[in-house]
Amino acid sequence: MAKFYGIGTGPGDSSLVTVKAVNTFKILDILYTPEPKKGADSLALSIVKEYIPETVEIKQRHFPMSADGVEKMAAWDKAAEEIKADVKAGKNVGFITLGDPMIYSTYVYVMERLLDEIEVETIPGISSFSNIASNQNFPLVMDTDPLIVIPCTMEEEKIDAALQTYDCLVLMKVYKNFKEIVQKLEKYDLIDSAILVSNSSQDREVVYKDLRDVHLQEKISYFSTILVNKNNKRK
Amino acid sequence: MAKFYGIGTGPGDSSLVTVKAVNTFKILDILYTPEPKKGADSLALSIVKEYIPETVEIKQRHFPMSADGVEKMAAWDKAAEEIKADVKAGKNVGFITLGDPMIYSTYVYVMERLLDEIEVETIPGISSFSNIASNQNFPLVMDTDPLIVIPCTMEEEKIDAALQTYDCLVLMKVYKNFKEIVQKLEKYDLIDSAILVSNSSQDREVVYKDLRDVHLQEKISYFSTILVNKNNKRK
Repeated sequence: MAKFYGIGTGPGDSSLVTVKAVNTFKILDILYTPEPKKGADSLALSIVKEYIPETVEIKQRHFPMSADGVEKMAAWDKAAEEIKADVKAGKNVGFITLGDPMIYSTYVYVMERLLDEIEVETIPGISSFSNIASNQNFPLVMDTDPLIVIPCTMEEEKIDAALQTYDCLVLMKVYKNFKEIVQKLEKYDLIDSAILVSNSSQDREVVYKDLRDVHLQEKISYFSTILVNKNNKRK
Repeated sequence: MAKFYGIGTGPGDSSLVTVKAVNTFKILDILYTPEPKKGADSLALSIVKEYIPETVEIKQRHFPMSADGVEKMAAWDKAAEEIKADVKAGKNVGFITLGDPMIYSTYVYVMERLLDEIEVETIPGISSFSNIASNQNFPLVMDTDPLIVIPCTMEEEKIDAALQTYDCLVLMKVYKNFKEIVQKLEKYDLIDSAILVSNSSQDREVVYKDLRDVHLQEKISYFSTILVNKNNKRK
């Protein structure tokens, strides 16, 4: 029976795709790929392109990131309707998404529209923070410590509360308020337990092992993540 | 130059290993595998066995889980010394670990003993909670919400605080105080936003979409995880 597959591509390095994802690409008829800007290339597609047989039809679709709710919902509704029609016509349909499909991915909004309609299988991917931690040999969390993953687009008081409460943190989406975040890390004495990585495993990867080295006026990439672990404090 | 590779095997399904891990197994001379109980088979090895060339020498080593600090440290010291000697003798050496190497893995203790001594490359793996979420089509976290991963071996007040503060939670190692955790989920009105999975992607996988169906006196598996997302409340 035809199925819909949501597939995590991992963070950017083609070799960090799972064997299951590679095998799934081989049985697809159609692959939907998200494009961040209208007409721009899909980053997710560039990661997995080498595994996609030529016979697979690629349907690139635009999902507005910063648009209002109505426009976003219309895009998800439309993609879900198209996918449903394809699967009901007997096609195996894939949808690729950066990192892991269940962690901050637009894929979820498409999936939720399809769960009651067609068979859905989701294949996990390596999340960007797992990848950064391994690349830097930076332990995220051990033993009885909790790990908290924070989008820095969250309310400021909540960011402060998390920084004061927890020893092991992943700070995602730091591009907008980067300067304020670095100041907070200094305030809470976390700066020597933190590293910053932009564009992990992509061509333009930048690693700062000491956040004091970053010029605070600099614009940093959308794909920037800070890892904090109080147990990894530099001497 | 010879190198030490720490390799995440993912959660249990051989197809959830990354392409990078598979390629790395091909260039190894020696592979260290952790055994949970003395003489017991390594679960990590059973996951990746099909990818290991016959020429690779397997060195199974015992790392006591519940032993005291001194005994544990002695085991890590010994393994690190052996690995260092192997790499200095020109061998490419691997070390496999369940799930992701940087999230609650003993691998970190071995790695930390080697970072200043030999070249170390860590390869990330799919974490058990990512896998469970994808398998169940259960979104872990979206938009501006934080995600917190809690080992239920943590102090009780801290567990309570996290359950009261956050909407998206992963509760790991729930086997010891499972009954108390379920009671807390009921107390904080999270029971309809939670699922429980034991032995994810292994032969004996058990899924409870409603935690009320679990007999609280039942012994549950060591590899049991509860996912909570208030935005996924069942109707």
